[in-house]
Amino acid sequence: LPLTIDLNADLGEGFGRSREAEDEALLDFVSSANIACGFHAGDATTMRDTVKAAKLRHVTIGAHPSYPDIPGFGRRELGFSPREIALHVGYQIRALRDVCGMERAKLSYVKPHGALYNRAARDREAAAAVVAAIRDVEATLTLLGPADSEMSREAHRAGIAFATEAFVDRAYKRDGSLVPRHEEGAVIHDVKSAVQRAVMMVKGQTISADDGTELRIFAQSLCVHGDNPDAPAILRALSARLKESRVVIAPFAA
Amino acid sequence: LPLTIDLNADLGEGFGRSREAEDEALLDFVSSANIACGFHAGDATTMRDTVKAAKLRHVTIGAHPSYPDIPGFGRRELGFSPREIALHVGYQIRALRDVCGMERAKLSYVKPHGALYNRAARDREAAAAVVAAIRDVEATLTLLGPADSEMSREAHRAGIAFATEAFVDRAYKRDGSLVPRHEEGAVIHDVKSAVQRAVMMVKGQTISADDGTELRIFAQSLCVHGDNPDAPAILRALSARLKESRVVIAPFAA
Amino acid sequence: LPLTIDLNADLGEGFGRSREAEDEALLDFVSSANIACGFHAGDATTMRDTVKAAKLRHVTIGAHPSYPDIPGFGRRELGFSPREIALHVGYQIRALRDVCGMERAKLSYVKPHGALYNRAARDREAAAAVVAAIRDVEATLTLLGPADSEMSREAHRAGIAFATEAFVDRAYKRDGSLVPRHEEGAVIHDVKSAVQRAVMMVKGQTISADDGTELRIFAQSLCVHGDNPDAPAILRALSARLKESRVVIAPFAA
Amino acid sequence: LPLTIDLNADLGEGFGRSREAEDEALLDFVSSANIACGFHAGDATTMRDTVKAAKLRHVTIGAHPSYPDIPGFGRRELGFSPREIALHVGYQIRALRDVCGMERAKLSYVKPHGALYNRAARDREAAAAVVAAIRDVEATLTLLGPADSEMSREAHRAGIAFATEAFVDRAYKRDGSLVPRHEEGAVIHDVKSAVQRAVMMVKGQTISADDGTELRIFAQSLCVHGDNPDAPAILRALSARLKESRVVIAPFAA
Repeated sequence: LPLTIDLNADLGEGFGRSREAEDEALLDFVSSANIACGFHAGDATTMRDTVKAAKLRHVTIGAHPSYPDIPGFGRRELGFSPREIALHVGYQIRALRDVCGMERAKLSYVKPHGALYNRAARDREAAAAVVAAIRDVEATLTLLGPADSEMSREAHRAGIAFATEAFVDRAYKRDGSLVPRHEEGAVIHDVKSAVQRAVMMVKGQTISADDGTELRIFAQSLCVHGDNPDAPAILRALSARLKESRVVIAPFAA
Repeated sequence: LPLTIDLNADLGEGFGRSREAEDEALLDFVSSANIACGFHAGDATTMRDTVKAAKLRHVTIGAHPSYPDIPGFGRRELGFSPREIALHVGYQIRALRDVCGMERAKLSYVKPHGALYNRAARDREAAAAVVAAIRDVEATLTLLGPADSEMSREAHRAGIAFATEAFVDRAYKRDGSLVPRHEEGAVIHDVKSAVQRAVMMVKGQTISADDGTELRIFAQSLCVHGDNPDAPAILRALSARLKESRVVIAPFAA
Repeated sequence: LPLTIDLNADLGEGFGRSREAEDEALLDFVSSANIACGFHAGDATTMRDTVKAAKLRHVTIGAHPSYPDIPGFGRRELGFSPREIALHVGYQIRALRDVCGMERAKLSYVKPHGALYNRAARDREAAAAVVAAIRDVEATLTLLGPADSEMSREAHRAGIAFATEAFVDRAYKRDGSLVPRHEEGAVIHDVKSAVQRAVMMVKGQTISADDGTELRIFAQSLCVHGDNPDAPAILRALSARLKESRVVIAPFAA
Repeated sequence: LPLTIDLNADLGEGFGRSREAEDEALLDFVSSANIACGFHAGDATTMRDTVKAAKLRHVTIGAHPSYPDIPGFGRRELGFSPREIALHVGYQIRALRDVCGMERAKLSYVKPHGALYNRAARDREAAAAVVAAIRDVEATLTLLGPADSEMSREAHRAGIAFATEAFVDRAYKRDGSLVPRHEEGAVIHDVKSAVQRAVMMVKGQTISADDGTELRIFAQSLCVHGDNPDAPAILRALSARLKESRVVIAPFAA
């Protein structure tokens, strides 16, 4: 049986047609698209166009909800209450679901964005609010997030499907957490190294943590986009390399 | 049979709880609430809270879609194409309809905001885009706008219900159009005068145009809010005066 | 010798000409204008127009810097580092100083806005960052803030002039701090009560804290604007009442 | 005497540290940096950090003013009046000049961004407003824009220095204007072709217009950044190729 892995990337993060070209380039390589819902980026036209483009390429569609913070690209911790988080996340999931409905496309999962992702990973109340929003809108959606996190635990408690993701271009600590972005060596810019690590993760082999310890990372999906300018190149190379290694790139969610 | 008139005002134009007090004051006097959908103001919490507060007071709920322009409060003409208008308006109507669904409240009408309202009043393609968005999302919604406008004509063509509104605090020209805001005397700040004119409109009496001509304005709804700082005082006085005159304040839409 | 008090209000919080009418109404009654610098509201035209209008009426001009958060009106705590605070505050002070220079008007003071005000009142590092920004741009500017706060202490340490303000429409606790906005009775909506309290403060008389204790509040300036919808009415009444009581309304800063 | 050409790119278009890595990569190859001033992107920290990074690499600094439109990235035509344009552009130039002053760096030129650039190229009043803003703030700044445009003519009339730029990754019509972005073949994605054309422009050789006509484009500066995702790769390759061809990359302005 061939190995299978999902590749996910953030899409629809422009306004109007401003990132159309970049998005089309990424859509050719990923199997899952995290589509911005207008709160950190994206608007009613990008949502529709990105859903349409993803459907055309049989890429699975996920909502990528954020704190409402376009000027800060959703990267600022706004300290919202759990009620506010649930309302904002619910609003965004419903908005994207409606757009999917208009394009006869299917919404399959939810992955929080930026500061909200980081907070929900480690703050139980925030994670519970995200999970509650999913359950209220459409309980069959999968939540995509880091393994062994408050998100994974709250999804489990509430009976919401959970899928784990790993980061191709980030260094890990021995405990499986990411090396914080401001530390030296946190981001892997070298395409070859990133691709190599990704393939090892997929094959169940160990990779080196930042202190040299060998570490095994399991994930149903690899995230290969973000604020790393080398991400598109990494994605292209990784996709080619996985195909060579006979790993099937396929969505984690139906 | 008693005379009946609807009073509408713009609501939910804060963020979080920033305008809660103002909104509650207005909700006690209007029969229809134009609720901001997050594109010129408002967010997922204000939408929910305003819908809830309106329902509690039996105030009819309308969507108040705008160009996406929070820094400009929706007052800048963005020159969107008809397709962009239809997508943005559709997005906002669906968003508010979903919020209504969560609160078991009913969405009854749509009134465009600011620059989009002004454009759709006189630009046939923009009006057709607004009407198309309504028809696609929920063809039973009423469109609220100025009499004898491209909006009224396009609604008629498409079989969408249309209701007309007049402005209590604005001067009119002899042809029934508003005196442009930058002209002297365009805005009526005097509470008594505004209330007097409103009552005359409701009773079918003539009012004076800016050149002294007598003019008759028919409208199913009176708009009594906007960027006039005296609007809340006008609304309060108007509501009292209408009751004295045995005019029933009631929503134009079910 | 007559008693003297300053009245300050937030101005220039529209975009383009959107709040021109409200602002002109307030400018007739205040002696000091906190002018928004474009980060929570305001833009290059409002800054220029408000400076011009304030100068015309001999109203003293202050910068009203904020976290960069137009959608949240500067009311969200963004958790910026001290360096980020200093850069953002410095940027805004310089921007308004430049506008003043173009209108041959004088910039006299700085009052932080919203969440930044609240944080700098109690967080020593944030207060020090605000003070450092003032010292770097123009060390002769006065900082306006609450008595006995981290702002007052850091200004003192750095040799920056400090002026205290009290709130006319807010209830106080026995320790002189404000009753938090979400508690019952925090905001005084009744115009008469607010005016009465203000006059007592000015005369050095005691007012009642929320638990009935008698409390004396000293302040060089009274803040009579904010998100209280009754603020304009309070300001008008207070101004009249102070004049009756032969209290001179005059700026705290030259 | 060796041939000389300036390479300019848009920088500082993130918020906080969000694009630091991309910006540092670009700064290694350009000779002039168009730095965002907070109106379409950028904030007080990015302005300071980008000025500092540019100075460190001896890259010439220009202001990149825009319509105030962060959600639209300055790409929407807001239809501002000439007075509004002059005030907004003046505000941004002063803001960046002040930041330069704090870093003891020199501000050398101004290049409008996005929709404002396009409008000022062909609308005489808008061009005159941009030029007036430059003259009012600092008449020694150079305006960078397209050859034979309203910007070039208005700069000439007002005695403001003007420098022309050409686009490396865009197709030209036989009259020297750009092929509109929505037409087929408007953007050149192939790195080799783009580099080849740029070198031919620099050497004064003809390039092919979209209809096959041979065309000569003169420019003091080549713009190698924008919304083309391949721009960084093009810039890197172009820089290497120019060095091979013994063309000196040097700023157009002192």
